[in-house]
Amino acid sequence: MGEFDLIARYFSQAGAKRADTQVGIGDDGAVLQVRDGFDLVITTDTMVCGTHFFADVDPRALGHKLVAVNVSDLAAMGAEPAWLSLALTLPEVNEDWLAEFAAGLHETADYYHCQLIGGDTTRGPLSLTMIAKGLVPHGKAITRSGAKVGDYIYVTGTLGDAALGLKLVQGQHQVSKKHQAHLLQRFHYPSARVALGQALRNLASSAMDISDGLAGDLPHILRRSGVGAFIDVNRIPMSQALKDSCDQAEALQLALSGGEDYELLFTVPESRRGALDVLLSPYGVPVTCIGRITGASGKLELKAGEQAISYQHTGFVHF
Amino acid sequence: MGEFDLIARYFSQAGAKRADTQVGIGDDGAVLQVRDGFDLVITTDTMVCGTHFFADVDPRALGHKLVAVNVSDLAAMGAEPAWLSLALTLPEVNEDWLAEFAAGLHETADYYHCQLIGGDTTRGPLSLTMIAKGLVPHGKAITRSGAKVGDYIYVTGTLGDAALGLKLVQGQHQVSKKHQAHLLQRFHYPSARVALGQALRNLASSAMDISDGLAGDLPHILRRSGVGAFIDVNRIPMSQALKDSCDQAEALQLALSGGEDYELLFTVPESRRGALDVLLSPYGVPVTCIGRITGASGKLELKAGEQAISYQHTGFVHF
Repeated sequence: MGEFDLIARYFSQAGAKRADTQVGIGDDGAVLQVRDGFDLVITTDTMVCGTHFFADVDPRALGHKLVAVNVSDLAAMGAEPAWLSLALTLPEVNEDWLAEFAAGLHETADYYHCQLIGGDTTRGPLSLTMIAKGLVPHGKAITRSGAKVGDYIYVTGTLGDAALGLKLVQGQHQVSKKHQAHLLQRFHYPSARVALGQALRNLASSAMDISDGLAGDLPHILRRSGVGAFIDVNRIPMSQALKDSCDQAEALQLALSGGEDYELLFTVPESRRGALDVLLSPYGVPVTCIGRITGASGKLELKAGEQAISYQHTGFVHF
Repeated sequence: MGEFDLIARYFSQAGAKRADTQVGIGDDGAVLQVRDGFDLVITTDTMVCGTHFFADVDPRALGHKLVAVNVSDLAAMGAEPAWLSLALTLPEVNEDWLAEFAAGLHETADYYHCQLIGGDTTRGPLSLTMIAKGLVPHGKAITRSGAKVGDYIYVTGTLGDAALGLKLVQGQHQVSKKHQAHLLQRFHYPSARVALGQALRNLASSAMDISDGLAGDLPHILRRSGVGAFIDVNRIPMSQALKDSCDQAEALQLALSGGEDYELLFTVPESRRGALDVLLSPYGVPVTCIGRITGASGKLELKAGEQAISYQHTGFVHF
């Protein structure tokens, strides 16, 4: 099977079509119509076999996750997902694998109403790069650089579940049967907080998604905004599954440094906290205030209630 | 050096800045302002070490070529290049290599007035995916699907030089000293026909760039347009370097199937041939009529003058 047959069979025909796609797969490039008054938001994520996933990963879950982690970046900017491109590097053509991977990808793309509009297919060590494009009203994108001293720090959902899910996959942890499915789901099938991200456009002063763990990611906001922060670790939201399966120290370590939760981390000025409660309640996603922005530029202080604690973040280091 | 230091040192600071980039490198995504009345064109090209380039390639040339081949796709759509994203997968951090690669990339990006606005840096087997974004007036993108029976087929520049350059690099061919630099330049430092591509917006009925060789690429236009074509091989433009260095059969084979020339292949209706001559003359790039679109759907006929010839295209097959 040639490159073009492969693309035709697995990628060109399936999936959602959008009216604002002028030209999709099959030309030198895709042609996309950006609505008047909107900016384009574009994100890129690469997943390399052996670095970001195991060779024996369920290809359907991989297709899902590739879309979800990209769409999560759009959500963190307050953007509405619209289009995806895929650069797929394969060592060989394994049709069963490709069919499952493509099914996972298209299911999740459809769920977020995204159309796959192009990419490249090449031979080499297994690697996937996805480029997600979204739309946001002009000037309304939520960046990492807008946090101000006194703003409140929030997270969506619960933290640490995906990291514990990874430990289950690696056989490094045992959990009771009733929690297993939830934790594996959180690791293999993360949700992107798309609707909530858009609701934050007029509320949040800064936002990002949590991919490397709270203690690894919050410093990006602090650096870009030129501020500091304190977090009360007792307020970090954790699932019952995590609390039942780990002692307190391990649960905290997973929540702070585990990564791959793809929850949103955002800051809100005092004046908009009331609006936040009202506007976010319909989304059914819990949001929890865990700390506050300070003037101690670049410094992240952790407290347990009133007591300062010291913590060494050990995130994923590529090089 | 961490991922973020690496990005900061080699990619964030250097290169052109554009006023229509709202947010560049360093956030969850880039935010780009698409001019009112314009569509966005997006292309993706992956280059894998061992498949698309040799491990010992000059990293500066590699940085150039990665940009040029992507921008060439934009040129083929009639788009004005604007932004680039880079997904860079590296087995290790080699600072000398990275500095040269980044220099080649930024030089060429600046030349085409493109800003690098994001991407991803990961660890794994050496692989480069670039995503180029450009702008085209609404509805004016030139696709592969507009060729009509009777249209004339044109190419820019000369064909076959890059393929002969590759043979020099591989030590498979000898040429006289005076031609060597030209052929290596054509292989390592291809030009994207950006200005000419934009000039074709109101002239060409279809266009694409030649990356796999004329005989491999023209069938894409034929398929997408539901037409056929004949080419007079005697009219295919070849450089003096190619003609002096190869016998006729080999020169023809390189011109038809060699690939990597990144010249434009396009079709023009009879009614616009006069305008073509007038409008393209200022660009200083030769354009040559080499054949005509026919009604023989999907069929590519080759002739030498009046005599039909049979030819088997042997392009680059990934799988």
